[in-house]
Amino acid sequence: MSLLVVGSVAFDSVKTPFGEADDVLGGSATYFSTAASYFTDVSVVAVVGSDFPDKHLTFLKSRNIDIEGIERTEGRTFRWKGEYGYDLNEARTLDTQLNVFQTFRPKIPESYKNKNVVFLANIDPDLQREVLEQVENPSLVACDTMNFWIEGKRDSLLKTLKMVDILLINDGEARELSGEPNLVKAAGVIHSFGPKALIIKQGEYGALMFKDGKIFSAPAYPLESVFDPTGAGDSFAGGFMGYLSSTMNFEEANMRKAIIFGSVMASYNVEAFSLDRIKSLDYSELEGRFREFRRLTHFEDLT
Amino acid sequence: MSLLVVGSVAFDSVKTPFGEADDVLGGSATYFSTAASYFTDVSVVAVVGSDFPDKHLTFLKSRNIDIEGIERTEGRTFRWKGEYGYDLNEARTLDTQLNVFQTFRPKIPESYKNKNVVFLANIDPDLQREVLEQVENPSLVACDTMNFWIEGKRDSLLKTLKMVDILLINDGEARELSGEPNLVKAAGVIHSFGPKALIIKQGEYGALMFKDGKIFSAPAYPLESVFDPTGAGDSFAGGFMGYLSSTMNFEEANMRKAIIFGSVMASYNVEAFSLDRIKSLDYSELEGRFREFRRLTHFEDLT
Repeated sequence: MSLLVVGSVAFDSVKTPFGEADDVLGGSATYFSTAASYFTDVSVVAVVGSDFPDKHLTFLKSRNIDIEGIERTEGRTFRWKGEYGYDLNEARTLDTQLNVFQTFRPKIPESYKNKNVVFLANIDPDLQREVLEQVENPSLVACDTMNFWIEGKRDSLLKTLKMVDILLINDGEARELSGEPNLVKAAGVIHSFGPKALIIKQGEYGALMFKDGKIFSAPAYPLESVFDPTGAGDSFAGGFMGYLSSTMNFEEANMRKAIIFGSVMASYNVEAFSLDRIKSLDYSELEGRFREFRRLTHFEDLT
Repeated sequence: MSLLVVGSVAFDSVKTPFGEADDVLGGSATYFSTAASYFTDVSVVAVVGSDFPDKHLTFLKSRNIDIEGIERTEGRTFRWKGEYGYDLNEARTLDTQLNVFQTFRPKIPESYKNKNVVFLANIDPDLQREVLEQVENPSLVACDTMNFWIEGKRDSLLKTLKMVDILLINDGEARELSGEPNLVKAAGVIHSFGPKALIIKQGEYGALMFKDGKIFSAPAYPLESVFDPTGAGDSFAGGFMGYLSSTMNFEEANMRKAIIFGSVMASYNVEAFSLDRIKSLDYSELEGRFREFRRLTHFEDLT
């Protein structure tokens, strides 16, 4: 019933074919915790610089997110600048300034140590393990990662994966991590690394879950206007983990529902820049779109 | 209850990372009619050259396919040569020899003229209309097309689309035809061209149907070994149209089931070169995989 996330809090500058936004609130932990806050209590571990305005922390607190673990350090906050073309599936990174994130060492506050669900957003796998060493035997651990760590810190990443129940990555990353172009075979290889469940995010095509020898395929919600895909993966993870944490039911059938709630959060997230759309949703809007996912995928059985 | 298809019968030479096959039976009408033959009576209109062996015609007849409309002409049969990389999503065409297909003018045999469901595979839109002018008021007309005609014969294609109930194309073609990168908006534009239903094929990601203001999203079946994607789109169309023709129910809910049967046929087709896998399936295998599609997509409703 309480969820811990470690990741980035950042300023993003984003350009899409539909507009641009400079130095808006972003970062994996920000998107994740905001999305998860609709389902469960969330506690964040991250670092920001002295330039980080209080209003953003006030916003997170307004979502009932515990920010005790957000450390403030001398220097500038992590900044990312990217651009999307019409296909919107892949960002072109124009600039990354790690700033205070460069020397970040996650320190888990005493009050966080008994959180029973942990999400390790996409950070250095060494740091992901440092987090796990500081928490007391959580019931469920999930993590994200990226090509940068798969290529540059493979051994460390494999050590982390041994400690993880669920891995969430995109299809290109799954292929690279496993060395298998076929996703079904890739899932088998990744299971052998440790995670009993693998969720492969496929952007505008949805997500696949591999667990207990079963495969679940969830579509993305077909939107008439996708405004900014930044944070879609993190808000997906937030909805998914938030729902799991609220139910504490890690059966495959419940994880399917969690994936749909993740997809719901991601679909709202991409409708606007930054957290503009997901910062103030009604729970009825989440349920409404959940039901739309059913209408989108339902077909009658054979008679 | 009777389905007419006009398209190509060809020899394919295909290279994939898993093997290669030379001068094997292929062509849109071949894949389509074989897939559809599991559901309904199919009649083919196509052309082959003097080099086309009787054994292939014998095979089609063995599937109870009416080949009266397959014309044999002096010259060589249509040949296509292509190659796939590990991603298997897109073929690289190495050689296309139209041969007898170059001067093909579809002649509909008298016995075909009252067929009530018509599928116009991907051929010159002028020829697609010639077919429609020769048949007597069919209940349902569907067609495929490709970038080559969208770019080179747009006006003719738009004339054909006015006469068509269902258009089946891939996502890149839908974007190009409509001038809209967003698929939901693209569907709106394409509906305005005539087709009341649009089916967008997304290769390894499945298919989307837009009809009556509703969207249906069907996944592709996640296979451990995709051997050769050639003919996947045509066997999808064959399963889809075959099921519609067998039920003569064109309601949106039944079209969803038809899309799943199309996906079933495509999933079997890609398991082997040419028609090797789909030439001898049991109907129970089709039903079995249909049920697997339900297990793949099912999630519980909100309580």
